[in-house]
Amino acid sequence: MGEQLKIFAPATIANISCGFDVLGLCLDGVGDEMTIRKVTSKGVRITKIIGQDLPLEVEKNVAGVAALALLTNLDRELDFGFEIEIKKNIKPGSGIGSSAASAAGAVFAINRLLGNPYDQTELVKFAMQGEQLASGNAHADNVAPAIFGGFTLVRCYDPLDIISIHTPKELVATVIHPQIEVKTADSRAVLKPTVTLKDAITQWGNVGGLISGLYTEDYDLISRSLKDVIVEPLRAILIPGFDKVKQAAIEAGALGSGISGSGPSIFALSKGKENANKVAKAMQSIYENVGIDYDIHVAGINAEGVKVIDQPILEL
Amino acid sequence: MGEQLKIFAPATIANISCGFDVLGLCLDGVGDEMTIRKVTSKGVRITKIIGQDLPLEVEKNVAGVAALALLTNLDRELDFGFEIEIKKNIKPGSGIGSSAASAAGAVFAINRLLGNPYDQTELVKFAMQGEQLASGNAHADNVAPAIFGGFTLVRCYDPLDIISIHTPKELVATVIHPQIEVKTADSRAVLKPTVTLKDAITQWGNVGGLISGLYTEDYDLISRSLKDVIVEPLRAILIPGFDKVKQAAIEAGALGSGISGSGPSIFALSKGKENANKVAKAMQSIYENVGIDYDIHVAGINAEGVKVIDQPILEL
Repeated sequence: MGEQLKIFAPATIANISCGFDVLGLCLDGVGDEMTIRKVTSKGVRITKIIGQDLPLEVEKNVAGVAALALLTNLDRELDFGFEIEIKKNIKPGSGIGSSAASAAGAVFAINRLLGNPYDQTELVKFAMQGEQLASGNAHADNVAPAIFGGFTLVRCYDPLDIISIHTPKELVATVIHPQIEVKTADSRAVLKPTVTLKDAITQWGNVGGLISGLYTEDYDLISRSLKDVIVEPLRAILIPGFDKVKQAAIEAGALGSGISGSGPSIFALSKGKENANKVAKAMQSIYENVGIDYDIHVAGINAEGVKVIDQPILEL
Repeated sequence: MGEQLKIFAPATIANISCGFDVLGLCLDGVGDEMTIRKVTSKGVRITKIIGQDLPLEVEKNVAGVAALALLTNLDRELDFGFEIEIKKNIKPGSGIGSSAASAAGAVFAINRLLGNPYDQTELVKFAMQGEQLASGNAHADNVAPAIFGGFTLVRCYDPLDIISIHTPKELVATVIHPQIEVKTADSRAVLKPTVTLKDAITQWGNVGGLISGLYTEDYDLISRSLKDVIVEPLRAILIPGFDKVKQAAIEAGALGSGISGSGPSIFALSKGKENANKVAKAMQSIYENVGIDYDIHVAGINAEGVKVIDQPILEL
């Protein structure tokens, strides 16, 4: 008894242009810190949330719900429990996987404290229950990269099949978060239930090109493939200045740019940190000109996913 | 003057389950032989076709049309011409790229005899003119693998962007051709102009999985990804016994099975030649039981594409 883990729970970018609902990537250095402590009293408690006003009730908190999903699945009853503290750096609703970070962090740490009874795909399943609470949709495109790290493909949900995709070392993300609210419900509502076969073929050609470009580290091919003819044209309208920010990113040398998750954050991918910084300047200049507040991050790709940053052994 | 090339023009499988209109692969040992000869009289002539009753008129022959497309594009007028002989082993209408082989072979050989002024992608463009004649649709999903070899992805047509995909060494194809006619017009007519977003996402998840499995030589992942939820359910009905043949292939150990191109050939992919032979037996037993004639091939993947098999220098 008495162990605790301090972990880093990373932000993630879902969809990545052509890969709507299947692709995601994990960011380096952008994310929450969580402390998960094994305690003598049974069950799960969220003891503290710093940085955001989020519910402490376990059943209303994504980390709590994900943790309960894991514990309920265990084939034994524990005679101890867990306390969770969250230092929330990722703003909820920003479109870079805020709820996914909390859910992924909780299940990763509890699994570790239990001696790793579950593999990464099983952890994704539990974390998806947190996503269900957050958005009404148990999707995996943020929790998968948060847990696996790097680029991930959610090939299939039934059964859940998550593939780690090779990540070129020089790929750097720029993400800008305009301080406006886009409700997940709205971003779902603008989608159409059908698409033309022609557009679908274009999209899966680009998915094939992007995956190929990632494996062969062909930055030109990655750039040519970072296109979304299906979702971006519908959702872009919900994000003020989207077209201008994207254009500024491309003109500044980005390989591609698109909506991060369901927005409102806009991401760009570049080759190398220097380019990514130039792209950041170009993107933020658009929001500065019109007076929209923003956060901006320049981040490499985090190949590890959730990770332990401190593991003191406490004597209780 | 006086050079001639004897080449092997390979059969190809287009679509490959999830990769409708974008993926293709090149077969080893199944294909036509063509002899292309530089002659003093200008223009292109088809001098002989062995094995099939196909038009000798240049403008009505896919090899002729493709050759003319290349020659018309040259920035100089030649003071010589070309004669083409075709030994046609691939049956037209079989669904394994019969027209593509002739078109690809013609442009490959003429390009070689001219000192290779064009790259592979440009050759695909010329060969697509042959496909336009053959099917009314200048598609590249057979000519691309015929020219590049291995697995290819036609990411985009405008501009044409063809990607060579890594091909695992142990992958072996089985192709069965039931001797029935499926008109290309019919196989196009059953397609629907729209698809559900849900099915489209499933399909591009599988495209991503298949491409990833090819690069990592993960045969299980290749197997899980060889699924087509969009086109196969509509086209299968045009091919007698499709479901049974596919099921027999899978039960005999194939990684996956589907319609080759627009049919009627049915392909399966297996790990290793031994498995592919077992799969062949299982597939042919279905047609034997119902008395449908068939051709069957077991073939490795041809990484080279069209190739020179003999290059005598003739003295005229």
